[in-house]
Amino acid sequence: MASVTSTSTKPHKVIGTRPVRHDGVPKVTGEAKYGADMHLPRMLFGKVLRSPHPHAIIKSINTKLAEAHPDVRAVATAKDLIPKETVGQEVVLGVTQTDNVLANSKVLYSGHAIAAVAATNPHVAEEALSLIEVEYEILPAVTTVEEAMKPDAPWLHEDWAIDNPDQIPNVAGQENYQFGDLANGFDLADLVVEREFRTQSVHQGYIEPQNATASWPPDDRLTIWCSSQGHFGIRTNVARVLGISESEIKVVPMEIGGGFGGKLNVYLEPIAAILSKKSGCPVKMWMTRSEVLEATGPASGSYIRVKMGATRKGQITGAQIYYAYEAGAYPGAPLAGAAAAVLAPYHIENVQIDAFDVVDNKPKTSAYRAPGATVAVFAIESLIDEIAENLNIDPVKLRLQNAAKEGTRRADGVMNVRIGAQEVMEAVHEHQHYSDPINDTGKDGLFGRGIAMGFCRNNSGMACVVANVLDNGKISLVEGSVDIGGSRTAVSQQLAEVLGIPVMDVIPQVADTDTIGYTSNTGGSGVAYKSGWAAHDAANDIKDQLIKRVSMIWEVPSKDIAYVDGALQHNSDPELRMTFKEIAAILPDTGGPVVGRANINPGGLHGSYAANIVDVEVDPETGKVDILRYTAFQDAGKAIHPSYVEGQIQGGTTQGIGWALNEEYFMSSDGRMLNTSFLDYRMPTSYDVPMIEPVIVEVPSAMHPFGVRGVGEANIVPPPAAIANAIHDATGIRMRNLPMSPGSILKTIQESNSDIR
Amino acid sequence: MASVTSTSTKPHKVIGTRPVRHDGVPKVTGEAKYGADMHLPRMLFGKVLRSPHPHAIIKSINTKLAEAHPDVRAVATAKDLIPKETVGQEVVLGVTQTDNVLANSKVLYSGHAIAAVAATNPHVAEEALSLIEVEYEILPAVTTVEEAMKPDAPWLHEDWAIDNPDQIPNVAGQENYQFGDLANGFDLADLVVEREFRTQSVHQGYIEPQNATASWPPDDRLTIWCSSQGHFGIRTNVARVLGISESEIKVVPMEIGGGFGGKLNVYLEPIAAILSKKSGCPVKMWMTRSEVLEATGPASGSYIRVKMGATRKGQITGAQIYYAYEAGAYPGAPLAGAAAAVLAPYHIENVQIDAFDVVDNKPKTSAYRAPGATVAVFAIESLIDEIAENLNIDPVKLRLQNAAKEGTRRADGVMNVRIGAQEVMEAVHEHQHYSDPINDTGKDGLFGRGIAMGFCRNNSGMACVVANVLDNGKISLVEGSVDIGGSRTAVSQQLAEVLGIPVMDVIPQVADTDTIGYTSNTGGSGVAYKSGWAAHDAANDIKDQLIKRVSMIWEVPSKDIAYVDGALQHNSDPELRMTFKEIAAILPDTGGPVVGRANINPGGLHGSYAANIVDVEVDPETGKVDILRYTAFQDAGKAIHPSYVEGQIQGGTTQGIGWALNEEYFMSSDGRMLNTSFLDYRMPTSYDVPMIEPVIVEVPSAMHPFGVRGVGEANIVPPPAAIANAIHDATGIRMRNLPMSPGSILKTIQESNSDIR
Repeated sequence: MASVTSTSTKPHKVIGTRPVRHDGVPKVTGEAKYGADMHLPRMLFGKVLRSPHPHAIIKSINTKLAEAHPDVRAVATAKDLIPKETVGQEVVLGVTQTDNVLANSKVLYSGHAIAAVAATNPHVAEEALSLIEVEYEILPAVTTVEEAMKPDAPWLHEDWAIDNPDQIPNVAGQENYQFGDLANGFDLADLVVEREFRTQSVHQGYIEPQNATASWPPDDRLTIWCSSQGHFGIRTNVARVLGISESEIKVVPMEIGGGFGGKLNVYLEPIAAILSKKSGCPVKMWMTRSEVLEATGPASGSYIRVKMGATRKGQITGAQIYYAYEAGAYPGAPLAGAAAAVLAPYHIENVQIDAFDVVDNKPKTSAYRAPGATVAVFAIESLIDEIAENLNIDPVKLRLQNAAKEGTRRADGVMNVRIGAQEVMEAVHEHQHYSDPINDTGKDGLFGRGIAMGFCRNNSGMACVVANVLDNGKISLVEGSVDIGGSRTAVSQQLAEVLGIPVMDVIPQVADTDTIGYTSNTGGSGVAYKSGWAAHDAANDIKDQLIKRVSMIWEVPSKDIAYVDGALQHNSDPELRMTFKEIAAILPDTGGPVVGRANINPGGLHGSYAANIVDVEVDPETGKVDILRYTAFQDAGKAIHPSYVEGQIQGGTTQGIGWALNEEYFMSSDGRMLNTSFLDYRMPTSYDVPMIEPVIVEVPSAMHPFGVRGVGEANIVPPPAAIANAIHDATGIRMRNLPMSPGSILKTIQESNSDIR
Repeated sequence: MASVTSTSTKPHKVIGTRPVRHDGVPKVTGEAKYGADMHLPRMLFGKVLRSPHPHAIIKSINTKLAEAHPDVRAVATAKDLIPKETVGQEVVLGVTQTDNVLANSKVLYSGHAIAAVAATNPHVAEEALSLIEVEYEILPAVTTVEEAMKPDAPWLHEDWAIDNPDQIPNVAGQENYQFGDLANGFDLADLVVEREFRTQSVHQGYIEPQNATASWPPDDRLTIWCSSQGHFGIRTNVARVLGISESEIKVVPMEIGGGFGGKLNVYLEPIAAILSKKSGCPVKMWMTRSEVLEATGPASGSYIRVKMGATRKGQITGAQIYYAYEAGAYPGAPLAGAAAAVLAPYHIENVQIDAFDVVDNKPKTSAYRAPGATVAVFAIESLIDEIAENLNIDPVKLRLQNAAKEGTRRADGVMNVRIGAQEVMEAVHEHQHYSDPINDTGKDGLFGRGIAMGFCRNNSGMACVVANVLDNGKISLVEGSVDIGGSRTAVSQQLAEVLGIPVMDVIPQVADTDTIGYTSNTGGSGVAYKSGWAAHDAANDIKDQLIKRVSMIWEVPSKDIAYVDGALQHNSDPELRMTFKEIAAILPDTGGPVVGRANINPGGLHGSYAANIVDVEVDPETGKVDILRYTAFQDAGKAIHPSYVEGQIQGGTTQGIGWALNEEYFMSSDGRMLNTSFLDYRMPTSYDVPMIEPVIVEVPSAMHPFGVRGVGEANIVPPPAAIANAIHDATGIRMRNLPMSPGSILKTIQESNSDIR
């Protein structure tokens, strides 16, 4: 099904193979424990009262009736959280995470949490919410960046206006990147194109809603069970919101039903903790799908303006990019991720980026797969396509001509090390899909092909691994990285590779925050990279210890012993040889158990490139786009488990297709989300997506011991642009707003003067 | 309250102090989770059908009716366990642990498990047991070693008779120790005394009955939650009984309500596993108190004969000891432990020991605090008292005169390293109690004082520790030793001592078998020794890593940096100094987290000596003994947490008092235990025991980095002899059978011709 184009030549025995995943059986049989499977004796159930208004002052909250309900055990409001002044938490523009967990003086979006109730069953808890009386003073709301930045817009955070009344309203932050001489760049151009793009809020759409169970007994430490993208990060955030020390908290990671960036923040965890403390019982909470959509982080909607110049021969001479990203109610839109990705495939001498972080009356945005990159790249790759068309240059050749390389500079100023931009473009160009006819069905219709590039800078971080050698030669591996996409196996493979043992002899587990050393979040495509690297180092630690043991047994110096192909052997005496299984069986008698260990913070942000070729058919009567054929390319550096890499490519591409064609938050005129269910929030189903052919390109990372780059994100980036370019190829219209839904396409067709072929 | 006599001079800041125990609050509030607190969704309840007969052939088992019960989900019998031939398990004389878990062709004691049922509630499970039809052929039973060894005794294991028909019946094993020239030794003696002693089965009497919850989903690994003295040992034993690999099993340690040697074997664990596999649901099982007494390991009853010679001046010239210990239904009485302890306080040139391991129709015995030592030492220390009396030598001076020292040989052949025998005797001699009048009440009555020595060889083993440095300078410590007596704190203290941090900055946990490296059982007084040692090494590992980090930060060579008093400092530049907390806070930026690690198998069996001074009053009308004053001495090597050492001394002494005065299995003439409840099995209560004054002697172990010896066991050894000697002092009679219950004392008084003073 898939092909791997590799520039790596080192032979491997375990990495690059496709073993069954370690967590497969329990997930298939239902034995795997997700957050919602938690049950503790005396457990209560917590529910959250949420604001119906997108913007309002809370004049009063009266919880007395709820507290008097015979089955209610505790009620929590913002008063139970520590005031932000007293905490060691990061205060950005006077705003803290605490306000988002439970609104204090104002609500900033419809769905904003105000109070919570713990009761003996979830129905009573829900019912008791209606006993809480909240008095609001309703304020006007803004739900797009353009509205929010208008001079007369209502300010979400009034003190910002007081601090700086001349500022553009609701701008929380601004980033600027600039090098070269932009004016000169445009002067050198024969063609300069400037376009505007608009995109809507989309949600990460993980299957499993947020959940948390907390137990905080009197005088004891707080334990939280939840699914997240990083239980160490949850520990940090809960500590900040509750104003306690991280060492007073244990977070136990449950299996996670998808995150995609949306499970890094805390929502229910601190509330469950407060309710547990107040009631003296464990408290379990979970969100409904509506709560997930209304109150957890979507990805930013945006306004983007791009101006690019190119010579007649196809040399891109300058690029100017303005983008304003929605942050939702509190600051934090992914400006830097966008700046890193937006021009990453290209080497351009003259660049200017002006980026704005804009708050509006929507839930605080979260990271979403390649944060910030998708919509910025949608704009750039649409424009590149338009330039290629105008210059009459093959769009892949135009890209190859301007490809970023080792030693060139990225738009955010980072100097490129060894990267795979060119290799991915070449893989596109050489792929059969690129030369096959678009429509091989012979039927009439509007058929088109588009291509686009994508990039994600990826992320690294701290990682710890402990590996216990068992006496039958298996290894129990303890890691700190939450496993979302099969990383237990990808990490185990790297351990097994070093030790020359079968990967199924490794028994991996993700341990809680008390048990394993600090390991950073599962995000930034970083787990196979950082925890895999830690596993590599832990395996080498085991090797070193085994060599010392065998040196004792054989009575020869350690330096004369090598570990080769899963066995210890003497460099000159072939009689002296012992397999890993053989030495494992006698460890107790040779000094005790052997435990491998690694605690690292490897750094190394080298990023992954992706590209798409997509064929579409557009129905001119309905505006509906059918995806006919899809080939998705990505540079994995080294694919540890090619099936999982392919799965990431297919999954990310599918999410990109949803973002391109259908997904959006429909907001009412007064600022409430109208489509708060998966029936109305239109994610792609298996009916909407064809077989996506994944093509793995391997340009090894220069840092990682096996050349891993991380593959979780870049794949979501190209689809909107690739599909927009294919729609243009099919219809002649340029779609510059997302989603490119049937209605939107029909409207654009009707508004355009272009003849539909 | 207590005194510590120490020969150690090294100053310590954390060890030797008495911090609050880490597990104190959850145990006081009830939040701590014991085995019986387990609850899993869809959990079933298992109950065991037990034999009413002490010795019978099982002719047939019919489980059809039970299986047909609508609420029964699974029934297990020995047929579900793998046949012993196919396993890698240790087969001793054709007998395996499997037969004790579920009887196959024969039952060997009343209470022997035959079948088990899992049902939707525990009452149905119990009821369904009556639906199982078992056809027995009843055989004659033997319940003492003397009966069991008679030439015409029924053989429990007939194939032993076939293999060797001339053998003494029911002898499973024999150990002999001999050195010097015994005949010559007795020739040199002016006084030779030979006496017989008999003791009854006693139970460990832990508060918490055995329990196990198992979940064995299809195609997945087996998980067992249980309280035990070593979850790694449980894993090994379950693997053997089920014929699967250890790596297929995860054992999660629950808090334990006492063990004292009785929670090393598996009983319910493999049955719960089988029932879970057959039913597809988790299964929880627990024993009633009657089941604990009838079916789990008591300590051996015994027959002992001792002959000792001494010169007029008090030199002991020879000792001959014969002892036959009950093993219960299957081999394994603690012969070696007895041989190590029996003469350990003394240096004797001519020694012979003949020891017999004898099966009889009682539950298979288990280790019990200083296994084998208590009853053998009861015999020897009674005899030493008699010799001292005959020679008219002060009994402490006689002991000091013959004290074992570094370089002398123990009865089991071990050469003594540095030991505390003499120091403990001197502490007895110098203690105020030894010179105070026995009866300072002025009232009339039979008052007496006794002294006795005791010893336990202790045990070591493998131990692993992982220590994660948190960013606030606390440490989460992961260990593999089950915490019975506060060892979380004792281990944490040793880590904290090395790092110069407060012990409450250590957050210890006992991790499951998947998470931490192999750690041997919590037994043999070994945890503070081996896991403490591992913590010491893990702390040094942290130190080494911190020095490297600081070397990077300061840009000076590692060799110029020292870790002193919880801070890193440059050897010559006083400006360069950083506390542990300071460096902990910046670890992420200096290379990542720091994780300390140790995996060791330190060996080192140096043993601990104990001694008692006890004052009693004997009521000549009832035979009841009242303990008036009790001082208990023990060599701790180094007392890490003196309060816990004192607690061990007091607890062990109390168990020794129970063994001395009241505890015994009352057996019916047809071989069934009659007193299967704590109402009838008479353990000491707070009414029976006075304040026991603990005296800690510190003669550091030459091996352990802090000199720890282990203090869990030796304290149970002296009480029976000390109390017997006190009874003699009060009444003139020598009690040579245990327990010295009122009836037994009255009978001895009546039988003796001695005038009662």
